Amino acid sequence: MKKIINHVDNLLDESLHGFAKAHQDIVSLHQHPTFIRRLAISEKPKVALISGGGAGHEPLHSGFVGKGMLDAACPGQIFTSPTPDQMLAAAESVENGAGVLFIVKNYAGDVMNFEIAAEMLECEHETVLVKDDVSLPETHSTGRRGVAGTLIVEKMVGAAAEQGKKLTECKALGDRVAKNTASMGFALSSCTVPAAGRPTFEIGDDEIEMGVGIHGERGREPMTMASAEELVQHVTAAIDKELDPQPGQQVLLHVNGFGATPLMELYLVYDLAAKFWQGKGVEIKRSLVGNFTTSLDMAGCSVTLTLLDDEMLKLWDAPVHSAALRWGS
Amino acid sequence: MKKIINHVDNLLDESLHGFAKAHQDIVSLHQHPTFIRRLAISEKPKVALISGGGAGHEPLHSGFVGKGMLDAACPGQIFTSPTPDQMLAAAESVENGAGVLFIVKNYAGDVMNFEIAAEMLECEHETVLVKDDVSLPETHSTGRRGVAGTLIVEKMVGAAAEQGKKLTECKALGDRVAKNTASMGFALSSCTVPAAGRPTFEIGDDEIEMGVGIHGERGREPMTMASAEELVQHVTAAIDKELDPQPGQQVLLHVNGFGATPLMELYLVYDLAAKFWQGKGVEIKRSLVGNFTTSLDMAGCSVTLTLLDDEMLKLWDAPVHSAALRWGS
Repeated sequence: MKKIINHVDNLLDESLHGFAKAHQDIVSLHQHPTFIRRLAISEKPKVALISGGGAGHEPLHSGFVGKGMLDAACPGQIFTSPTPDQMLAAAESVENGAGVLFIVKNYAGDVMNFEIAAEMLECEHETVLVKDDVSLPETHSTGRRGVAGTLIVEKMVGAAAEQGKKLTECKALGDRVAKNTASMGFALSSCTVPAAGRPTFEIGDDEIEMGVGIHGERGREPMTMASAEELVQHVTAAIDKELDPQPGQQVLLHVNGFGATPLMELYLVYDLAAKFWQGKGVEIKRSLVGNFTTSLDMAGCSVTLTLLDDEMLKLWDAPVHSAALRWGS
Repeated sequence: MKKIINHVDNLLDESLHGFAKAHQDIVSLHQHPTFIRRLAISEKPKVALISGGGAGHEPLHSGFVGKGMLDAACPGQIFTSPTPDQMLAAAESVENGAGVLFIVKNYAGDVMNFEIAAEMLECEHETVLVKDDVSLPETHSTGRRGVAGTLIVEKMVGAAAEQGKKLTECKALGDRVAKNTASMGFALSSCTVPAAGRPTFEIGDDEIEMGVGIHGERGREPMTMASAEELVQHVTAAIDKELDPQPGQQVLLHVNGFGATPLMELYLVYDLAAKFWQGKGVEIKRSLVGNFTTSLDMAGCSVTLTLLDDEMLKLWDAPVHSAALRWGS
């Protein structure tokens, strides 16, 4: 394993220090317990949006803390849930009278710890659960995983909160965005968790893992390596089956790299996915291509589609000023 | 070799189609010959900024086409210079009465082809050569390579052109930014050019390539893998020796990933580099961390330092609206 680190145990801390220093105009780092929060909290009461999850998916979630998106993010160790004390401390730090909304990816550890934190919270609170990975059936024992669609929920609900929407409205919106969002990805390589020191899974030279999770969880099926067209066809078909967009439907199309895939290849995937839905008369109104929900050094990518209504489109376009997404301000 | 492609020969074309489609609010793709240009060209005469180079470094340069930065970018095949007809066609497309400025990374092929294009241009024109890689001595036979500092030249000169600065002023500014910018990087892995099908260079499990180029050129020295502190110390010392920033000097610090290095590690590198210069009393006024000048799927990163004066700082902060850099508008 080759990583640019000093000690495995300090990687997260040292990295967060660098992140907070590089973006000191947007965020600050709180330690013991650890969370990243927005520097400037609105003076008017505003629903406080808090997310979190294991590290190793950067820029998710810390990179989305800022005006128009998250108020705080709680990073766990790599691929490990943050703890309830982090969530509670973050909530106490950013709550300003309009309640707290947790945005949680559907993994057992995250769900449990955010539930414990929610029970201990004294202010009004709600939780939006994101489970957009359609590579698993909805009846899967632990449910579907939350993957790259999470940032779309965070962006749209973040804009709504900024505009003064109430907690119940933000919760309803988050559920609506989550329900209208579906993702699926595939991996060409494994990732290597520094503390483990070896690849999470084995993959042959001529194999890809179709439907992989963002922690290197084995997918729906190992496949023989195929052309980009065939790979993308698998993914778009699964998403299309789930969301069933009709001709004229407005959508947001997001192609997300897992960390080690060149941007050239991501744009090629975008082109193929866009052609697929445009061929069905679906209207691609907004696009996002890049490495946003990563899996350390995994090669591969995911495709995410969100069915848009007019309100969601406006919320996507609303100003955001975070480390990883920035426009309109 | 595993790549998300259809045919090696079509990768660039298909990728550019995806890029132009995903960013159709900012750019358009011209074919035969190939270039990416800004959708909206200023009505007032404005110096036209054109860059280009081999593909495989995305988002450089196409991702920097847009208001406040480049007017056009000419991509060659992967790691291969674009041709003079691309540069000429791009210049004809975006020149609007104030002349053309070419921004060229110092590689023999790029320099030669931009020179040929310049000779054929009928309008007023100048060229800024970027050679910021201090891993090679200034007396190296082909001179120093242009690497991640190029985007800093493109951003600042782009802002100046947008503000109506004349061609001679843009040229002088570009030379000044280039002279005050130094970079150095190291690789943990090679990259794999799709047409070659195998890694560009061999590297041992316990080796890194210190001073690597962005095409996988062998560096200043192979080194035994070391801690992040030791690796960064090599890089910052070389840059510091070159630019010799004094206490109180304002700087821009840019940590650039080569493509396959997790953001967590890049922020850790940023933290170490920032500490080094802050320890010398240097004032880090602006920061940029991410994958901007990549080498396909190479693991590793580079550090770039730019000595700032007040004008350069203002130009960095000026609005930019491109696919890969966007703020202030």
